[in-house]
Order: sequence, then C-alpha cells, then structure tokens
Amino acid sequence: MPVFLDSQQADFETAFTALLNAKREDSPDVDDIVAGIIADVRARGDAAVLELTAKFDRLDLTAKTLRFSEAEIEAFCAHVPEDERRALEQAAERIRAYHIRQMPEDAQWTDPDGATLGWRWTPVSAAGLYVPGGLASYPSSVLMNAIPAKVAGVQRLAITVPTPDGIANPAVLLAARIAGVDEIYRIGGAQAIAALAYGTQTIAPVDKITGPGNAFVAAAKRRVFGKVGIDMIAGPSEILVIADGDNDPDWIALDLMSQAEHDESAQSLLITTDAGFGRAVAEAVDKRLQTLDRRAIAGASWRDYGAVITVPDLDQAAALSNRIAPEHLELCVANPEALADKCTHAGAIFLGQWTPEAIGDYVGGPNHVLPTARSARFSSGLSVMDFIKRTTLAKMSPEALRAIGPAAETLARSESLQAHGLSVTARLDRLNR
Amino acid sequence: MPVFLDSQQADFETAFTALLNAKREDSPDVDDIVAGIIADVRARGDAAVLELTAKFDRLDLTAKTLRFSEAEIEAFCAHVPEDERRALEQAAERIRAYHIRQMPEDAQWTDPDGATLGWRWTPVSAAGLYVPGGLASYPSSVLMNAIPAKVAGVQRLAITVPTPDGIANPAVLLAARIAGVDEIYRIGGAQAIAALAYGTQTIAPVDKITGPGNAFVAAAKRRVFGKVGIDMIAGPSEILVIADGDNDPDWIALDLMSQAEHDESAQSLLITTDAGFGRAVAEAVDKRLQTLDRRAIAGASWRDYGAVITVPDLDQAAALSNRIAPEHLELCVANPEALADKCTHAGAIFLGQWTPEAIGDYVGGPNHVLPTARSARFSSGLSVMDFIKRTTLAKMSPEALRAIGPAAETLARSESLQAHGLSVTARLDRLNR
Repeated sequence: MPVFLDSQQADFETAFTALLNAKREDSPDVDDIVAGIIADVRARGDAAVLELTAKFDRLDLTAKTLRFSEAEIEAFCAHVPEDERRALEQAAERIRAYHIRQMPEDAQWTDPDGATLGWRWTPVSAAGLYVPGGLASYPSSVLMNAIPAKVAGVQRLAITVPTPDGIANPAVLLAARIAGVDEIYRIGGAQAIAALAYGTQTIAPVDKITGPGNAFVAAAKRRVFGKVGIDMIAGPSEILVIADGDNDPDWIALDLMSQAEHDESAQSLLITTDAGFGRAVAEAVDKRLQTLDRRAIAGASWRDYGAVITVPDLDQAAALSNRIAPEHLELCVANPEALADKCTHAGAIFLGQWTPEAIGDYVGGPNHVLPTARSARFSSGLSVMDFIKRTTLAKMSPEALRAIGPAAETLARSESLQAHGLSVTARLDRLNR
Repeated sequence: MPVFLDSQQADFETAFTALLNAKREDSPDVDDIVAGIIADVRARGDAAVLELTAKFDRLDLTAKTLRFSEAEIEAFCAHVPEDERRALEQAAERIRAYHIRQMPEDAQWTDPDGATLGWRWTPVSAAGLYVPGGLASYPSSVLMNAIPAKVAGVQRLAITVPTPDGIANPAVLLAARIAGVDEIYRIGGAQAIAALAYGTQTIAPVDKITGPGNAFVAAAKRRVFGKVGIDMIAGPSEILVIADGDNDPDWIALDLMSQAEHDESAQSLLITTDAGFGRAVAEAVDKRLQTLDRRAIAGASWRDYGAVITVPDLDQAAALSNRIAPEHLELCVANPEALADKCTHAGAIFLGQWTPEAIGDYVGGPNHVLPTARSARFSSGLSVMDFIKRTTLAKMSPEALRAIGPAAETLARSESLQAHGLSVTARLDRLNR
C-alpha cells in the first residue's frame, strides 16, 4: 500500500517531510575498486581495457575488435523490425527539431563607454556517451544523449556499450546510427569511462562524458570529473501527477506505473483535489498490478515509495510540488497552463490528460534525461547546452580604457594586486602622455 | 627562468605536452576532516557552527551574532574610502549590464503534429555565496558571484565570510550591499558550506552554492554537491597572451605578472611570432620582478610555470591555444577578431593591446569566474545560467497523440516497458472508439 495523506491532517507536515527525505537508493561504495580500474586503464591503456572486458563481460576482444566495424553495425541494424526503425526515426526527428531551437545565440555590442563586449558559443570537440548493456540498454536514451551533442556541433561522438557474452542490442546500434554517432566501442563499466576520459592506444580521449550507468559507472564519472565534463549523476526516476476528479483513474494509474516499473526505487506520487478520485486511482493501480509484466518491480516501488495526497485546492498542490521538485510533473487538470505557471521547480511538465509522461520518454521532443532527487530546484535536464561552452569577449578602445581603467586601478589597489593595477596604469600613461 | 620553446624545434611536442600536463597544485587531502565537520553541522546545527568558528577563527559568536546586523554592515561600509566605493559601484553597474543580456528567453510553439512544446526558465530560490576571509577576500569576487544571482532573480542570497579574530573586510561588506545580498554570516570553512547546504536553526538552507575557497571549502562543496548545486571547483589562475612583435614588452610583462602575482601555482604563458619580442618581454618581466610588491609569489610562478613560445605564424598560435584551453586569453595582434575566431577553447578573450586582462577582473562586465586547468574545453565561466534552471513543457492535443502515440507504443514494447506503452494505448483506445 502506498501512503495516503491529506494536507489538512494534523501530522501532515511530519509525514510529508518524511516522504521528501526518504532515502530511496543505497548505492554500494565501489569507489576504491573504481579508483583501481581507472589507474590501471591510465597506466596500461588498451591492455587493461581488454583484460577487464574479458573478466567482467566474458568477452575476448583485441585492440582491433574493441570498436564495432561499419559492417557489423550494418548487420546488427538489419535485425531491427521495420516498425521499430520507423519509430526511432520519427522520435529522432522530433527530438532533433526540439533541440535545434535550444541553440543560444552569440552576442556582441558596444557600450556607451566604447567597450565592445559579447560572447560566443562553441561546441565541445569530442564527447563520449555511456550506454548500459543488458536490460537497461535503451535505444531511446541513445537518441536523447546523442542528438543534443550532434545538434550542438560535436565533431566526434563516441559511444561505449558493454556487450556481456557478446550480446548486443541491435536497436541501440540503430539508434546510434540514426543519431549520427561516429564511433561505437563494445566496452562498459568504469574501464569504459576511464578510456573515454584518458584515452587508450585505440580510443582517443573525449572532453565530455554523458549517459546513465550503474554504481561503478557513476563512481567513475565522479572521479574523472574535472579532467572531462560530465552530466548529472541520475538517481531513480520519479513522477508527480496532479489531477482533479475529472480524469480516468486507469489512465492516471498507468502513468504512475510507467515510472514505478523502471525500478523498485522509483517514486510515483499523486496529488489530487478529490479524495474519492485518489482512492479510485489506487484501486486502478492495484488492478493493473495484477497483470503488468513488471508487476514485481512496479508493485514494490508503489508499496514502498508511492503516495496519494489530497489537498483542498490546486494552489496547495503547486506549493507541495515545488517542495518535491519532481523530475516529471503531469498536470491533469482543467487549466494545466495556469497550474504550470505556479509550478516553478520541475524537470519536465506534461500538460493535460492527453500527454502521458511516456510520450516524453520517447517521441515528445524534449529530453528525457532530467534532474532527479529534488535537484530540479537548481538544475535542468540534458540539452545542447551540455555540449557547448561560452567564451566571453571584451575589447577596450583607448577611450573605453580611459573611462573605466581608473576604477580597475582603484580596485586592484584595494585588493593589493599591484601588477593588476600597473597593467592598466602603463596603458593610461601612454594615453595621457 | 621560464621555459623558452620554439614550435619548430625537434622536441617541441614533448616539451609542450609536459607544459600542458604540469601538475601545478597539490591539494592536501582533507576529505575525512571535512566529512566530520559536515556530519557535525548536520547533527548539531548552530551549536557545531559556533564551536568550529571559535576553534578555527578564534571568534566567540552566539546564534544571534552569527549574522551581521544591518547596523554593523552600515558601520563597516562607512570605512570604505569614497574612491573605492565609486569604483565598486561603477564595476557593479557594468557587470549588471553585461549579465542582464545573458538571460535566456522562454519558448513555446506548436508543431505540425499538433504538439505544443517549449521551455521555461525560473530562478533558483535561494543561493549561498562563499567569500574567503583574510588576504584572498576580494570584493570584486563578491560582485562577480552575487550580481548574476540577483540578475537571475534569486530571491534569497546569503553570503558566508569568515572573520578570523573578528576582522572583517569593509569593502567585501560594501560589495555585498551594492550587489543586493540579503544575509551575511561571519562564518567560513567547511562548516559554512555545511550550514548553507543543510541549514541550521539560524541559517536557512540554500539550493545552490558558489564562490572560491581553500582546500577545506572545495572538499566540502564536492561533498554537498547533489544536495545542492555548486559552481566549478576552481584551480590556480592562468593567462595566455598571444602577441606579435608590435607591442610594448613592458605592457605584456605586466599582463603576465598580473596572473603570476595571484598564486605561486598560477601560470603565465606567452606565444609570439617574434622571438626577439619574446626575449624582450622576459627581460621586462625580470625588471618588474625587482620591484613588485608580490615579487616572491609572482617570481615563483613565472620561474616554475611560465613559458615563452615562439611560433612561425598566428595559425599555429591558435592551434596551441586550443590545446591549452586557457582561462584568460589576451590577443595583442593587429587583427585580434580574426585570431579570436580561431581560438575556440577559452574562458574569456581580451582583444587588442588596450584590453589588459585586469580590466576583466574588475570592470569589463564579463564574469571573472572562469574555467581553469583546461576545462574551457567543456565548461564556461559563471553566468546567470548558474542561477536559473529550465523546465521543459509538452502538451499533446488528441490529434498529436494520434500522430506520435503509436511510435511511443512501439518503442516502449522494444524496451519491454509495458506500462509506458499502455498509458498511451489507453488514451488512443478512447480516441479510436
């Protein structure tokens, strides 16, 4: 049973805070093992990567077979059913169209003092994308990570995907091809992250690494951060649905279960203005949990972390939502736009009953890599911004230096940074000669 | 003596790679101590912060005196000389004018399938800014961190600044006031970071922490990352000057020294097309090093990490610059704009001989918090973007769901996520009834 709460009940604040602070994930501490693997790959390059792949993935590779050849990719892609190929292509097109609009513009202007100022955006030269192997190997994640990189203008985009016992997911390779990925290596784990960050004889180093992974991959990403850029370290998935009574309980139940089925640590929350509707949704969940393929996972998530919260009005719903800062926020109310305006902390908002969250996982267009664990308070989902960087530009005319140089001299003196001041003074002296 | 290199010499690649990989900073490992401090502040709140402040800053505070009162701030500000006040105000105005232009726009559109898509930017609710005490307590850094936060719309901006033995820097308090900071606490070290991240009885928690600090502060920021957002962990400062022979060697020498005087680990590099000019700059540096106040620091930095590199043409200069990915890049050449176009990895570019880097430290307008240690390959300086986050928006019409829902069903099936698919199917069934 999930938790049933009413925001009017006496101990609501205590119960809600407990819900907010529930620790849903117990990551094993693998940091020492990961440190050893990274050091090994840095020291021995390909040889270490090949040994570790033989050990963990039971796969004997050589420097020559680390990378999928074009012919191999082609052969795998041919196994993808035609409807899946078309679906991937439609998804890719929509994701690309959305992300192209994210590209920010360069700027340049001359201000009243005569200083020409601005900035310029340029792509990261090379990026690496980690793709998990096995069950959690999702072609949709390949599209969501690779397309923003290519839209941003990344010249060289490499994927690492482990193929335990040699088994590869054809749809992952096809998604990589559709997204324009340049290199695909059949390696995984901390050794793949180390190879991408530091390079080996066969794999050139990259500047930025993104993509989900297990505890070893997450620990390795944390360790190479600084040497390269990384995206966020994602926690278990979450959805918050805010719904009034004018919805089909079964639809909302399925939306809740579409998060719960990801992971036993996932969290599905419903806030409703209609207590009866809340009960109806819980009943619909129970019914669906009798037949869902992944009912063991979804059921555990719903039982341990699910909640149905009744509130007197939508303003209270928005206030609670802002404290949750959900990764996914679905607004199934009469005027979802008005409610969305009040929900200021959320990774992605899905407006209205015709927008199930699953649309956003695949084909909506916005990215499905989103901030979890309340981090939508301060961070955003993956975007082209993750693959570009800004260089600021400043050019002083002699007049501009005359106008603002003295303030720099004063502040340098105040901070006891003499050479800073002198570098301005030497130039002003020339102008005043 | 700095290193003198010529890109045409036989062993240049080896020498240049050694320069790139030189480890300039040996941070002490204080992680265990910091972990203990954070746990203590989480457990005991104010009491722990007060004890640690008494211990490390030799300052006895109470919960009531943790925060500077308005009257205290007023009194300190009155000590700032009038020319410094005016310089801070001029700097603040220019920094504000630059950063206002960085605010990105919201977007919304309806695509041919009938899906309404977009995104919305909202500010972080509360931010904390760490300001070091003692010698490295720079009012300019207060402006550079606080103004972007306030331009972004951060409602609550708190500063922590240690005041060892009770000594505060009036200019820091004035800069905070000018920038619109809301709360100032006289605490520092890992205990300040812990208090900002987790809150105490007196200090409400924030969502994002920025600002420079020593090894303890850096380790604490790394540890609280995830609970709150943080800015980058900055390394020692760097400058690369690319200059042709048509420059005053003393100006360039001063520009190099204005980085070197920050820190013995700072790095100042000159790339020139004119070997004779390179020698003249080195001589000018030697001469300045005889009289500079901070000659011990600047001299050590120049001796240990400085370099003068001669190249046959500016294209080679740009190529080397892109491998260095400098924090500060000064282009003192006839056509700096053309050269800037080729320099794709740099935190900030200063164009032409009238733009000494020190202008950018204080009054240019662009931010002086910039990516160090080659991280300009994948990251950007501080900006309003650090204090806002994006929520993506998607709304399907029934027609849009009909157009793209089937692809989502197909991909959900391919990924064995049944509830994902059913949440779409249930709605399509209604439409097709």
